[in-house]
Amino acid sequence: MALKTIGAKAAAALDQELMSTGAFSIDQLMELAGLAVSQAGLSFRLKGSYENGLVVLKGGDGLVAARHLFHYGYRPTVFYPKRSKNELYQRLAKQLEDLDIPFVDDFPAAIESTDHVVDAIFGFSFSGEVREPFPAVIQALQETKLPITSVDAPSSWDIENGPPKTGLGSSFMPTALVSLTAPKPLVNHFTGRHFVGGRFVSPSIAKKYNFEVPPYQGVDQVVEIGSSEQKL
Amino acid sequence: MALKTIGAKAAAALDQELMSTGAFSIDQLMELAGLAVSQAGLSFRLKGSYENGLVVLKGGDGLVAARHLFHYGYRPTVFYPKRSKNELYQRLAKQLEDLDIPFVDDFPAAIESTDHVVDAIFGFSFSGEVREPFPAVIQALQETKLPITSVDAPSSWDIENGPPKTGLGSSFMPTALVSLTAPKPLVNHFTGRHFVGGRFVSPSIAKKYNFEVPPYQGVDQVVEIGSSEQKL
Repeated sequence: MALKTIGAKAAAALDQELMSTGAFSIDQLMELAGLAVSQAGLSFRLKGSYENGLVVLKGGDGLVAARHLFHYGYRPTVFYPKRSKNELYQRLAKQLEDLDIPFVDDFPAAIESTDHVVDAIFGFSFSGEVREPFPAVIQALQETKLPITSVDAPSSWDIENGPPKTGLGSSFMPTALVSLTAPKPLVNHFTGRHFVGGRFVSPSIAKKYNFEVPPYQGVDQVVEIGSSEQKL
Repeated sequence: MALKTIGAKAAAALDQELMSTGAFSIDQLMELAGLAVSQAGLSFRLKGSYENGLVVLKGGDGLVAARHLFHYGYRPTVFYPKRSKNELYQRLAKQLEDLDIPFVDDFPAAIESTDHVVDAIFGFSFSGEVREPFPAVIQALQETKLPITSVDAPSSWDIENGPPKTGLGSSFMPTALVSLTAPKPLVNHFTGRHFVGGRFVSPSIAKKYNFEVPPYQGVDQVVEIGSSEQKL
């Protein structure tokens, strides 16, 4: 039995529904999404290796995750080459600056001095071509031996079809993936550790979009899905 | 050495600072505050007794806490007699309605059928007189044997001076208190279990307001402060 997933269009519709009839604000959803990412990223720390994560991002959940990681005691560095003019993203970036979290421009140097990477470059709305300056970044992520946690999709992957057949990203397999709200079809091509986050989805929304709320434990904002697909 | 606390004026100034130069939105702060409250409230569950909490509230953090408690698997009931016209509070209430969380009007009946109460009626901005319909509620909270978790202040207590000397609230001592951001001076009159939440305060803000970021563990959003005041 295949894992229940939702496609890019359904995921976009679900987000819209949460923010319209669901009455969630984007600030709220971004905060909870980033919190989930930070907790999944933290899983590597349990093996004692993760102290100086590098968060590579284009969007807001990476900014939120970096803040929570800082408060957990890690020392994240942020590579955020295309700063968004979006007012929320600007505020989230300011919150990191107030924690003296370094924003770095030199990606090759940054990846040399870190022990874990959060890949929050492209999310479920990505399609088409990887634009500058990200091709070199994805190339480096594909080549590094460092553990990588990708958010919603390994960057460069197609949401429905998984990794590109050839070229950039075709051999990119992150160590972990956090699917926000619900897994996307690409997870059927993913062989690493798989987490699901988004502990704000109501049972009725999950039913409407034909997926299940995963078996979160305690107060955790993410749950790791085992190799047995029945778990979801 | 007394626990470091901040007074009502400083707490209000701190909130203002977070939302102005700190660049946090009220949605974000409310979400994180309510999440902290839900985790403190959960502490009673660890003793196996807490399944059907009653959240009594006037403000937003109680609404957020009720949602998270639902997602943890509890079945909260909400007593929210004075519905705010504030747009954020209306959205937070809608999020609970979408989870089919019951809003009840009959407080005596509700308290009869619950096993834990979250008191989120008045926060650190309370002063003066307890207005209708809350005197009877506080009277009931004062008399019940149920565990109660109060948010920022046991309702009816003065932020600086603690419980009223006589009359309503003078013998109200909740089982637990969650101080959001930093403890208020009333904690020096409080003898129950004390939690601190607000894992978004930067070291520089804590320094400016002369308190310490408490020793949070792992990904917890609250930390219980022991009887040894040195812990903070």
